[in-house]
Amino acid sequence: MNSFKDSAIPLLPSERVDDLLTHDLHIIQSDEVFSFSMDAVLLARFAGIPPRGRVLDLCTGNGVIPMLLTTRTSASIEGIEIQPRLADMARRSVAMNGLEERIVIHEGDLRELHTVAGYGVYDAITVNPPYMPLNGSDLKMNTHQAMARHELGCTLEEVIQACVRLVRTGGKVSMVHKPQRLADIISLMRQYRLEPKSIRFVHPRAHLEANMVLIEAARDGKPEVRLQPPLIVYNENNEYCPEIMDIYFGAGEGRS
Amino acid sequence: MNSFKDSAIPLLPSERVDDLLTHDLHIIQSDEVFSFSMDAVLLARFAGIPPRGRVLDLCTGNGVIPMLLTTRTSASIEGIEIQPRLADMARRSVAMNGLEERIVIHEGDLRELHTVAGYGVYDAITVNPPYMPLNGSDLKMNTHQAMARHELGCTLEEVIQACVRLVRTGGKVSMVHKPQRLADIISLMRQYRLEPKSIRFVHPRAHLEANMVLIEAARDGKPEVRLQPPLIVYNENNEYCPEIMDIYFGAGEGRS
Repeated sequence: MNSFKDSAIPLLPSERVDDLLTHDLHIIQSDEVFSFSMDAVLLARFAGIPPRGRVLDLCTGNGVIPMLLTTRTSASIEGIEIQPRLADMARRSVAMNGLEERIVIHEGDLRELHTVAGYGVYDAITVNPPYMPLNGSDLKMNTHQAMARHELGCTLEEVIQACVRLVRTGGKVSMVHKPQRLADIISLMRQYRLEPKSIRFVHPRAHLEANMVLIEAARDGKPEVRLQPPLIVYNENNEYCPEIMDIYFGAGEGRS
Repeated sequence: MNSFKDSAIPLLPSERVDDLLTHDLHIIQSDEVFSFSMDAVLLARFAGIPPRGRVLDLCTGNGVIPMLLTTRTSASIEGIEIQPRLADMARRSVAMNGLEERIVIHEGDLRELHTVAGYGVYDAITVNPPYMPLNGSDLKMNTHQAMARHELGCTLEEVIQACVRLVRTGGKVSMVHKPQRLADIISLMRQYRLEPKSIRFVHPRAHLEANMVLIEAARDGKPEVRLQPPLIVYNENNEYCPEIMDIYFGAGEGRS
């Protein structure tokens, strides 16, 4: 068993420590188990997060979103992850960064969290859920990756139901997902009284279709959504656009 | 009473003839009654239109969309307009362009059209409906403009109900609207079995919020939407972007 630098945090086989490129944060990752993607980084920057209060990240994986959120808020941050292996990775990353006072990682099922945490107790929720519906897609990857990517542990509807149970009236729920599911997401949010308030599409290049959508909804909000400027990842020279550079390498303060 | 060039088409007071900038088409407009805007031009280019068959334009105003669609299809095109004054303008514009064999303008209420035309008879429908809900906004403009802009004659839900009654299974319904109403539009389309298939947002500039949304839905379509590249109107030098130039001044063939 390795350990990171001189810290006492153990690494399991296949695990490595990556630099989160902001505020000297580091994170434990594994190509065999879980590595975060750009989706999580963009959501952590896009989400409406209060300066104080309680924030929850559903489907937290290795805890990347809670850790990035510490750079934007003084709120108390919780994450919940159903896979014990990933929850353990997340907890070790939290400890490695000395963030045990700021972040609590729950291991459990988001469909049951209200029975422990209560209803309407969070000021904001973030979620980067599994993207793929289960309709007959053959799952060739291992269980850890499959659960992170497919709606094995919970459907989109169950994620949205959990959000509305857990967030307070007027509180924000921010999600990253695939644009193909936009009609599902908006219809389900509406059905469960989460009103979409801000939407931003991410396009790999300016002339290509969007491959990610960021949505912020307010519980019992007034019906009116703002459609943010497109976020373009690469320019015509195959370089990151300035806003992406800022999100990845900037100070991470404030909202883009 | 004036008339256009040497044609026998009469113009009423306040009316003028504008050039549609493509295929030598001309249109009767009036600042006091109705003038089309960029929304209609973008919809006429965006909409999924079959090469033949029957196409209907709801809320047709002065008939700008039917006239532009003649450059893209050999289909038989109908428009329906509830205001007699505007239906008359549209008919005179159709005659002025010699398009009486291609376009029929109905004067009537889109909520009743199925009683005459029948159910599921159109292959594609376009609609640039009034954008503003009626919730207490004070209407300072004249009746013609108010009806074109506010949901006086029909609500968004009534427009969508009319579309689903009139379009055949698998047929396309294309709409331009304000992005603020996106959640309403998608929820209502879903409710009435119009599945959003393609969405494009129009941003005045690349760094600004969208101010128009173009949506194409298919009756009883499979749930999966494509989020098209953003359409940017002006570049950083305050000039129209090339795609806008092409839509306005290009041959008007094909789909952007």
